[in-house]
Amino acid sequence: DVAEAVRLVRAAGAGAGAFVWVGLHEPHADELAELATVFDLHKLAVEDAVHAHQRPKLERYDDTLFSVVKTLRYRSDSSEVVESGEIMAFIGPDFIVTVRHGEHFSLRPIRRALEADAELLAQGPAGVLHAIADRAVDDYLSIADALQEALDEVESSVFAPERSNDVERIYQLKRELIELKRAVAPLIQPMRDIVERELVPEEMSEYFRDVEDHLTRVKEHVEACDELLTSILQAHLAQVTAAESQDQRRMTAWVGLFAVPTAIAGIYGMNFDHMPELNFRYGYPLTVLAIVGVCVFMWWRFRRNGWI
Amino acid sequence: DVAEAVRLVRAAGAGAGAFVWVGLHEPHADELAELATVFDLHKLAVEDAVHAHQRPKLERYDDTLFSVVKTLRYRSDSSEVVESGEIMAFIGPDFIVTVRHGEHFSLRPIRRALEADAELLAQGPAGVLHAIADRAVDDYLSIADALQEALDEVESSVFAPERSNDVERIYQLKRELIELKRAVAPLIQPMRDIVERELVPEEMSEYFRDVEDHLTRVKEHVEACDELLTSILQAHLAQVTAAESQDQRRMTAWVGLFAVPTAIAGIYGMNFDHMPELNFRYGYPLTVLAIVGVCVFMWWRFRRNGWI
Amino acid sequence: DVAEAVRLVRAAGAGAGAFVWVGLHEPHADELAELATVFDLHKLAVEDAVHAHQRPKLERYDDTLFSVVKTLRYRSDSSEVVESGEIMAFIGPDFIVTVRHGEHFSLRPIRRALEADAELLAQGPAGVLHAIADRAVDDYLSIADALQEALDEVESSVFAPERSNDVERIYQLKRELIELKRAVAPLIQPMRDIVERELVPEEMSEYFRDVEDHLTRVKEHVEACDELLTSILQAHLAQVTAAESQDQRRMTAWVGLFAVPTAIAGIYGMNFDHMPELNFRYGYPLTVLAIVGVCVFMWWRFRRNGWI
Amino acid sequence: DVAEAVRLVRAAGAGAGAFVWVGLHEPHADELAELATVFDLHKLAVEDAVHAHQRPKLERYDDTLFSVVKTLRYRSDSSEVVESGEIMAFIGPDFIVTVRHGEHFSLRPIRRALEADAELLAQGPAGVLHAIADRAVDDYLSIADALQEALDEVESSVFAPERSNDVERIYQLKRELIELKRAVAPLIQPMRDIVERELVPEEMSEYFRDVEDHLTRVKEHVEACDELLTSILQAHLAQVTAAESQDQRRMTAWVGLFAVPTAIAGIYGMNFDHMPELNFRYGYPLTVLAIVGVCVFMWWRFRRNGWI
Amino acid sequence: DVAEAVRLVRAAGAGAGAFVWVGLHEPHADELAELATVFDLHKLAVEDAVHAHQRPKLERYDDTLFSVVKTLRYRSDSSEVVESGEIMAFIGPDFIVTVRHGEHFSLRPIRRALEADAELLAQGPAGVLHAIADRAVDDYLSIADALQEALDEVESSVFAPERSNDVERIYQLKRELIELKRAVAPLIQPMRDIVERELVPEEMSEYFRDVEDHLTRVKEHVEACDELLTSILQAHLAQVTAAESQDQRRMTAWVGLFAVPTAIAGIYGMNFDHMPELNFRYGYPLTVLAIVGVCVFMWWRFRRNGWI
Repeated sequence: DVAEAVRLVRAAGAGAGAFVWVGLHEPHADELAELATVFDLHKLAVEDAVHAHQRPKLERYDDTLFSVVKTLRYRSDSSEVVESGEIMAFIGPDFIVTVRHGEHFSLRPIRRALEADAELLAQGPAGVLHAIADRAVDDYLSIADALQEALDEVESSVFAPERSNDVERIYQLKRELIELKRAVAPLIQPMRDIVERELVPEEMSEYFRDVEDHLTRVKEHVEACDELLTSILQAHLAQVTAAESQDQRRMTAWVGLFAVPTAIAGIYGMNFDHMPELNFRYGYPLTVLAIVGVCVFMWWRFRRNGWI
Repeated sequence: DVAEAVRLVRAAGAGAGAFVWVGLHEPHADELAELATVFDLHKLAVEDAVHAHQRPKLERYDDTLFSVVKTLRYRSDSSEVVESGEIMAFIGPDFIVTVRHGEHFSLRPIRRALEADAELLAQGPAGVLHAIADRAVDDYLSIADALQEALDEVESSVFAPERSNDVERIYQLKRELIELKRAVAPLIQPMRDIVERELVPEEMSEYFRDVEDHLTRVKEHVEACDELLTSILQAHLAQVTAAESQDQRRMTAWVGLFAVPTAIAGIYGMNFDHMPELNFRYGYPLTVLAIVGVCVFMWWRFRRNGWI
Repeated sequence: DVAEAVRLVRAAGAGAGAFVWVGLHEPHADELAELATVFDLHKLAVEDAVHAHQRPKLERYDDTLFSVVKTLRYRSDSSEVVESGEIMAFIGPDFIVTVRHGEHFSLRPIRRALEADAELLAQGPAGVLHAIADRAVDDYLSIADALQEALDEVESSVFAPERSNDVERIYQLKRELIELKRAVAPLIQPMRDIVERELVPEEMSEYFRDVEDHLTRVKEHVEACDELLTSILQAHLAQVTAAESQDQRRMTAWVGLFAVPTAIAGIYGMNFDHMPELNFRYGYPLTVLAIVGVCVFMWWRFRRNGWI
Repeated sequence: DVAEAVRLVRAAGAGAGAFVWVGLHEPHADELAELATVFDLHKLAVEDAVHAHQRPKLERYDDTLFSVVKTLRYRSDSSEVVESGEIMAFIGPDFIVTVRHGEHFSLRPIRRALEADAELLAQGPAGVLHAIADRAVDDYLSIADALQEALDEVESSVFAPERSNDVERIYQLKRELIELKRAVAPLIQPMRDIVERELVPEEMSEYFRDVEDHLTRVKEHVEACDELLTSILQAHLAQVTAAESQDQRRMTAWVGLFAVPTAIAGIYGMNFDHMPELNFRYGYPLTVLAIVGVCVFMWWRFRRNGWI
Repeated sequence: DVAEAVRLVRAAGAGAGAFVWVGLHEPHADELAELATVFDLHKLAVEDAVHAHQRPKLERYDDTLFSVVKTLRYRSDSSEVVESGEIMAFIGPDFIVTVRHGEHFSLRPIRRALEADAELLAQGPAGVLHAIADRAVDDYLSIADALQEALDEVESSVFAPERSNDVERIYQLKRELIELKRAVAPLIQPMRDIVERELVPEEMSEYFRDVEDHLTRVKEHVEACDELLTSILQAHLAQVTAAESQDQRRMTAWVGLFAVPTAIAGIYGMNFDHMPELNFRYGYPLTVLAIVGVCVFMWWRFRRNGWI
């Protein structure tokens, strides 16, 4: 029973360093309402916690912090798709309530690591918040790496001699980058605020600064990838246009080549009564020779111009 | 009678928490002039309130606030069109004057909700302002969702194997995003100012901060959609170019294929006296066979190159 | 005589609220030099006032303000062209010197309005400055509306089923938007400064804040139009490319269609001695029928693929 | 001898307003080292002064200022090319050392103007710095005008009915704009600093503010030109694409037109024994008439569609 | 032994100016852990130092600074490729620990230069940090120059009359510019912080300001190159499109030219019984003449229109 646990923790006194951690998964409004009474959570924060698809943020309500962190997972098995969820946390002096939306971000390993590390556990709820943020950011880093890899592949494909239509893949990558950016960018300022406004114990400051540094790294990575993707799309368009023009030129050249024998043959197919060449003994082979000659000459010219 | 109502409210004293709410719909300058005298409204704010198409803002004139909020509605029935209006409000210590432009934003549900909720009503005019801003922002959120859906549809259409011309839809979406952005972006700073400059009672601060948070969410959503749309337009152009080039190639290939029999037949249609092949018993079937052979060979080559 | 007027005004004392207004139109350097001595104007400001094409600004020299405001006029009669000029003003405690460049911004209506309104006139030179800025900004607003209308027209034309080359009009609009932006953007900060640094009597503050608000409205309008224009140009390019590809496809399809009878007829035009079909009674009509059949079949296929 | 001159100036005392001006052109490291000892210049500034291609800046070393200003010249004689150099200056209380890189910025006229104007000369080294900055900025203004003119020409050429390939000129202009921007943008902040940090005598403040204003004018001009150039390049691409498609259409239309008589004539060139039309008295003229008729009809259809 | 060295240095006292410099190359976590104990380094900084691919930064942990600087090398031998590594440094009052990742940035020349220059060496660990940053930035400058050169080459190639496909080279350059930007941009703020927060002895301030100035130079250079590259890619696309359209036009023109004799000859190849021209004595040569005439006329028209 949560209320009982809280009573016990508070009875032990602040010096004991004990705290309550309540973990929920996509809770119903009623479940949260109960906890809100126990921990005196603000109505608006509770409302946000019930609904998924909040933006990353950190808000202060009296001495309770409310934080939202996006959780992402790269699914390499299906097509390149980033799955997203959220983890919200209410952090008080002697409690933390975590609300999870989405399936893919388990808190169990975090709890175990904390339980195994007395020093970390001694930091109280702020330590839990850091552990959550740290793991979420580690996921961002590995997604950023996976996107970089995907980008390198697209790049190779665009500049490979074989033709390929990479537009959709480029667009998918762009979309995932934007998703990642939306998870990362709004979280940087809150992490900075934690340090600057001293919302956590001083010993934790360096740790949140470290999270902020990693977020900045992901952000800069994403921005670089974004610029590259824009260039790749343009380069791809330029390559496709160039390849197309080459094909077109080649094929038109062949059509042009066949137009010559047709025209010459057409002339000697006319039915005039007086066409002296027709009576020449070697008229036919000479004409065929001329046709072949013209064709070879044209082929050679086209070749030289790189049209065939 | 408004003047009478004001007299009554002021007689009851500030402690009574009573206030006057005057609601107008696209009022004539004279109507407002009268109210301006009663409530001592600033000439410039009154002028703004008469004319539609103001930008979202919050201005302070002595102890009266003047706010403009854009009201949007997504009309799914017609083509994708965002209808826009405005709701202006003069907020004093014991009165609120709301001026509505456009048809689609009814204040009745807001009034009813307030009347049913004593706590909210106790906040006075600031509570009304919050209720209006909150509902306007809820509308922005649902429009953002509708635009996201429309964008997803366009995306599917662009990358579907069937060809389609999505340029106009993409442009329409872009236009609506810009409209939404123009409603959202200028409102963020005023909402922040309300909290920071303490223009409303302290208990309301969290509520306006919540509105600001939602506005930021819409803004980030709009920016992400905007980036995606830009990419979709480019991707669409690339797809159209690629598809066109494929068609072109295919058709030119067929023209080239037909040029071969024409050329060969042309040669055997010449009227030279001495063309030994013409007298061969199997000259004709062999020639036809040769023609068919060349055509099949070319067709196979074209096929292999992906031209047909 | 200006010097005499100044003497009279100063004799009347500051309390009288009298001031001198000198209006010049594209003055010669000598004319201004004389006034500069009378009013003790700064050399650098005088230099700026003589030359047209200054950027909008507000500078303070001791207790004289020097302001430059761009004046624009939309000439709907000719092609869409924005005519631009400038109006400079030296504002002292008891004088205002206005210098006008360009023909289209008459100060007469402003003078009449002021003379008719004792309250406004009582604000002194700052009132005149406001009246000028207000009218200039009203012109910006109406130009912004005119450009919006022109943009709507271009939009309709781009997405109309009839083809049109709108590139030049789009570019012209872009150019005018940039001109408008250059008039508007640099003026916002000076208007803010007037209010914040209290460069004008306190009663005038709201009025200059109002001007700033209108400038911001124009700026946001211009930025939205600018974004739309960029999209329109891209959409137009995409439309032209698509339309072109359709034409091209159609025409190549027809050429391909005519290649078939030519090839078949060519074969039966060969002069081989032994071509059994030639002797068939119904060889000719059957061949013509076959040709027509193949053509109809191809036409039907092309039609189904949307190529014809 | 410089050391002697310095001794004399210092002997005269600060009140005398005397100062030493040493002008160098692309000096060797040794020459500057000597002066550095005399004037106590900072090692790092001296190093910068020896090497060309510094960025515009203003640095303070104790009571010596070190400034770098880019000097540009537009060479209208050759192709549109902007020549660039630098002028560095060490400014102390009683000396100025100017270091010139590049050929085109002579300091002689500046010296003469200063010698002729006692008032200016009385400002000491700061007056010289202003004179240099002023002239450099005047050059920027005239280059900006020249680029504007070049841009207007390119614009006319792009939208002229005659075709032209303006890509290279557009790119050249872009490149020059970037060069100008790199000279202008980093100089604005230093000029502002001079005024705000009171690095020069108070009387000079207005003059440096004036330089800053001109720099801002150039910067805004460059930004407007830049935006226009981007649009021109896109418009040019659209125009070229449209013109190309028109040509292509026209030519394909003619090829299609000639395919008709070839096909019809081919049919009547077949060698079937039973082709009743061939024996008609007026078969030939009727066929020719039919061919002409079909061709005229197609030509008329093509014309109506704007294809020919 | 490091611990022993530290003991000796500390025994000598702060006045002696002695310090320990430990240099590591891609150390194992254990090696660093040992040093961390000796020098009391922060756990998070040590973790960062073990892993490569950190972003450039400067962090303060109590009285130890932790800095990360990217080291780049341009490999002109292979294809245009920028090799990147990192150099991390822990700087304390009497020690510096450098951690090198990547092969190409040797610290030996820096150590030798320091040992040879007593003045520099007297600056202690801050002097070493400056020497490292200075050399890294020198490398950036030379890479920026190399990229500028490569850009100039690409530019020449794009606008040369010979055709070339420069898309991949342009993209490669873009990629390298982004890499350079990522090394440069995040380092500017730390260098500024060093000066402003007085993290180093005062005499070193100018030196770090100089490094910041060079970084800004590289950044502005990179930004200018970036803008140019974007323009080059667009210009290249426009050139390719124009060249392609010219080829296409030329080839279609030739095909059109050959269609004329084919059509005319086809007509006189018809087998009508009554074709009076066929019996004319000079029918044949006149027809050939007509064909040649029409072809020459068409050729001349095409030529005049610039199609051939």
